[in-house]
Amino acid sequence: MEELKAKILKEGKVLGNGILKVDSFINHQVDPMLMDICGKEFARRFAGVGATKVLTAEISGIAPALTTAIHLGLPVVYARKTKPITMPDQVYLTLAPSHTKGRMVELIISPEHLQKGERVLIIDDFLASGATILGLVRLAETAGAEIVGIGALIEKNFEGGREALKKVGVQVESLAVIASLDNDTITFAE
Amino acid sequence: MEELKAKILKEGKVLGNGILKVDSFINHQVDPMLMDICGKEFARRFAGVGATKVLTAEISGIAPALTTAIHLGLPVVYARKTKPITMPDQVYLTLAPSHTKGRMVELIISPEHLQKGERVLIIDDFLASGATILGLVRLAETAGAEIVGIGALIEKNFEGGREALKKVGVQVESLAVIASLDNDTITFAE
Repeated sequence: MEELKAKILKEGKVLGNGILKVDSFINHQVDPMLMDICGKEFARRFAGVGATKVLTAEISGIAPALTTAIHLGLPVVYARKTKPITMPDQVYLTLAPSHTKGRMVELIISPEHLQKGERVLIIDDFLASGATILGLVRLAETAGAEIVGIGALIEKNFEGGREALKKVGVQVESLAVIASLDNDTITFAE
Repeated sequence: MEELKAKILKEGKVLGNGILKVDSFINHQVDPMLMDICGKEFARRFAGVGATKVLTAEISGIAPALTTAIHLGLPVVYARKTKPITMPDQVYLTLAPSHTKGRMVELIISPEHLQKGERVLIIDDFLASGATILGLVRLAETAGAEIVGIGALIEKNFEGGREALKKVGVQVESLAVIASLDNDTITFAE
């Protein structure tokens, strides 16, 4: 999507080690107008999949998942990384490696808010190795829900995520696909 | 605001110890339509304060802050509770007690995204003791920014937050004010 790519080129910073810093418009400061048009675009691309719920992981997935959910008119659930005291004792929990934290993180969903038969559209900020998204897939499948689509704002296609998601067998959409961050330069895929 | 009050009465659960569970529409599952109309209402109430930025704290503040920012056409910054590796070494950091976590949490903002002269509208999910919001006030003031308004979705007026915020000297708006959670019953203020 051109608006997102233009913003990445203007404000994204390559930090080395495959990390793209986008905290002026996604991860710390958020550009709400950009998130709104990204959500609208996800809603357009996934209009036909029959989703009943949008699923994401806290924290950075919340903004794009929320705007997508607004445009689809669906509830959104964000997996928690620490269990709040308001959550029941029995939860769905899985572990996923965090690229930016350098360790495993927990992904936790309350059975109250993800149930058998739901049709789940996963939306996240990044598709890199796919590990976080696959964690969300495991949680949804454990709940007896069906994944019907996966969307990411930014895909780093050199980290293998799209390949790893093939086994899920659903439509995968990224709004900006980065082919390389070598030499501190952001290169988009064709 | 009637829509929010109706949702609280329908789905909110009193857990005891002054805790109101709202994780079916704010804290875990989010009702995007409700968040959108709450954001629109905050935008209406704070239309005249001349804000240049919306500020909140991760995680539960993100949804209402984002929809408010969409309706005001302003960027939003969410204070982080752990410092990501993409953040510079020098940050603004303060500590605030977390009611639902039972311990102190860090609130961290990068100097890149909160600067001298900015006019900050704080939006959060709850106004209880006011401790988190006062933490955000300290961070903004340290950055040389000015607070121009404070909004919360839900105020628990028996926890003293509004009194604690008086010293900030700005307009404080809550969309639903709860006077009591005694006897597992949600009672709104007049």
